[in-house]
Amino acid sequence: MSIKNAFYAQSGGVTAVINASACGVIETARKHSDRIGTVFAGKNGIIGALTEDLIDTGAESDAAIAALRHTPSGAFGSCRFKLKGVEQNKREYERLIEVFKAHDIGYFFYNGGGDSADTCHKISQLSATMGYPIQAIHVPKTVDNDLPITDNCPGFGSVAKYIAVSTREASYDVRSMARTSTKVFVLEVMGRHAGWIAAAGGLAVDEDNDIPILILFPEVEFNQEAFLAKCQEKVEQYGYVIAVVSEGAHWPDGRFLAEQGTRDAFGHAQLGGAAPVVANMIKENLGYKFHWAVADYLQRAARHLASKTDVEQAYAVGKAAVEMALEGKNAIMPAIIRTSNDPYSWEIQEADLSKVANVEKMMPAEYISEDGFGITPACREYLLPLIQGEDYPPYIRGLPQYVTLKNVVVPRKLADNFEP
Amino acid sequence: MSIKNAFYAQSGGVTAVINASACGVIETARKHSDRIGTVFAGKNGIIGALTEDLIDTGAESDAAIAALRHTPSGAFGSCRFKLKGVEQNKREYERLIEVFKAHDIGYFFYNGGGDSADTCHKISQLSATMGYPIQAIHVPKTVDNDLPITDNCPGFGSVAKYIAVSTREASYDVRSMARTSTKVFVLEVMGRHAGWIAAAGGLAVDEDNDIPILILFPEVEFNQEAFLAKCQEKVEQYGYVIAVVSEGAHWPDGRFLAEQGTRDAFGHAQLGGAAPVVANMIKENLGYKFHWAVADYLQRAARHLASKTDVEQAYAVGKAAVEMALEGKNAIMPAIIRTSNDPYSWEIQEADLSKVANVEKMMPAEYISEDGFGITPACREYLLPLIQGEDYPPYIRGLPQYVTLKNVVVPRKLADNFEP
Repeated sequence: MSIKNAFYAQSGGVTAVINASACGVIETARKHSDRIGTVFAGKNGIIGALTEDLIDTGAESDAAIAALRHTPSGAFGSCRFKLKGVEQNKREYERLIEVFKAHDIGYFFYNGGGDSADTCHKISQLSATMGYPIQAIHVPKTVDNDLPITDNCPGFGSVAKYIAVSTREASYDVRSMARTSTKVFVLEVMGRHAGWIAAAGGLAVDEDNDIPILILFPEVEFNQEAFLAKCQEKVEQYGYVIAVVSEGAHWPDGRFLAEQGTRDAFGHAQLGGAAPVVANMIKENLGYKFHWAVADYLQRAARHLASKTDVEQAYAVGKAAVEMALEGKNAIMPAIIRTSNDPYSWEIQEADLSKVANVEKMMPAEYISEDGFGITPACREYLLPLIQGEDYPPYIRGLPQYVTLKNVVVPRKLADNFEP
Repeated sequence: MSIKNAFYAQSGGVTAVINASACGVIETARKHSDRIGTVFAGKNGIIGALTEDLIDTGAESDAAIAALRHTPSGAFGSCRFKLKGVEQNKREYERLIEVFKAHDIGYFFYNGGGDSADTCHKISQLSATMGYPIQAIHVPKTVDNDLPITDNCPGFGSVAKYIAVSTREASYDVRSMARTSTKVFVLEVMGRHAGWIAAAGGLAVDEDNDIPILILFPEVEFNQEAFLAKCQEKVEQYGYVIAVVSEGAHWPDGRFLAEQGTRDAFGHAQLGGAAPVVANMIKENLGYKFHWAVADYLQRAARHLASKTDVEQAYAVGKAAVEMALEGKNAIMPAIIRTSNDPYSWEIQEADLSKVANVEKMMPAEYISEDGFGITPACREYLLPLIQGEDYPPYIRGLPQYVTLKNVVVPRKLADNFEP
């Protein structure tokens, strides 16, 4: 068989382990140098393919590629950029084909979430729609854990671990001080549409850790009266309460809690978070002293606290994507299939990209407790395996040693510039 | 010599390693059971002494006490409560003496920051002022790192490590996405008066990590024009910028940046953070897309990422406090003295409490770069040893296994209740 080059790109919000998937792709491709030539990485994601900014991963040492496994973020740059359909924007597809042809690219690996699955699916059809033979495999990634078919998404387990650990740690802190100080701690977490990350806050509780936690899910319309009553009940029982609030928590009319029409002294609209809104609401209604935190990027970049399970799965889907490509597959995604809960075991299977693209997997109703503020035993059973194991990065002089690649862009072969 | 009981209390904001000091106190006292009887811990700090809520640490197993070394927060409860002078509030001192006498307490160990050093100093004078013989030793603790004489304060090294690691991780994340998304990331950190914690953000940079970081210190009056110019310069050079903002950052007139007179839709004053204010300011003036995080309690509770140096020093000051008491000392604090920078070495020496109480140690001018937005090599040389080494807690089922003590309160011996 002929040797073809491959294109790999990172898409959307990055995670603590998306580089572990890149590591899986590149290391596996290097093992099959009789079939795959150079792995080009898109500089800043798919935009790099459009502008012909292709990073030669062959310029990186084996050690540098191996270090991707323990390096958070997107080593080649990522972007938020969704290709339109071929009918709406044929020009972009023609450009992609020109670039792929110029660099003899026959494999397309796209590492992202739901939007990227859709883009990848469109690329996978280029052979049929535009006569350019290419195999496109989607490598799943999203902290939101909202892709269908796959049991979970690489990137989520590490955020879940971070939120579970941080919630437990902060709870101990608040418990210590509640007698004379803070009685309410509000932690805002990511997840605009799906409450998976917020649910992970519930893992701070176990038989040795009886912690009063209230969770505000995007799947549940916010009921202020019920929430405040619960807060008061917990403070009266425990002396304190912890609220884990999804950034997507919203009022019955759909407005996010974060959108409070807040204005600064000059009348400018202020972009705030949900956490200060919830904290102030409790203060105003119940009078409790509060503190709040917004974890934001810290939660998805926290490779120092990655889940070992997550790192292994992120690597495995990257590796499987290349292996599937070498088997001649197209328009699929390696999905993680749970084969047992206790002991936890999983395997990789193929998922049809047409069934993955544009489908969002929310928290099922049976994972949310009846009062709407907690997780059920079934949810705990689902989540716990995903945060198992620690996978610490190497430290030098007190800090994790993450790799920054050389990212050598190969000379352009096309004459014209392209502005995406 | 006769056997006397000891009283130990945790004071003020808790840290990731204050329990390591408790561990040092209790384990060392247990080794000297011929001299020290029971170590009573104040339930919720000094308030427990006033209300005669004394926890019998003798009811805890050796394993439980050992586990304090890796458990964040204050295991016995802490409080914010400053004793007034004997002249202003003799009643409280009389009450303390009644409780100490009733429980045969001859040693007083107080684990806290500047205010606690002052309280501890007053207790150390009880023999002279009120005829009750007691030895009072202060055990230093504060994430703010603002105690004098001691080279650094237990609790600070772990927060510094957390902020340095989190800043580096978030920087990698932002760097990945800056082409099409977030160009400015603002991280708010603790430190209302002293900028030590904010300074730790600067440690994210080293020869392998050229990260554009701007720090807003409480020691430097905020200059909006200069700050915005720096932000723009960094974004133009690097494509992104990271701002580490102390909660104590303030305008020339003394107002905190966080106090923006912000009001919600109903006209209520909103308590916000400095991070959203700075982020919105950059957006309004320069138009850059931003994200912001407020680490709040997560930073000081993050035992999962503690500095090994910090844990060792926290234990050492607890141990030394008991040893000094057994040598008959009073009115002192074990201070950490740096004896060498490279290789880093330190020892414990006695500091006179009268010289510790009510003195705040700010960042020296030579630790802040000339433009006011960074740290100098001298600051880096000071900070780096304090974050050295990892000291991971044990994990069970994916989560750190922290101990919750039984906290058995001994029966009261005094007839009257006391309301502090």
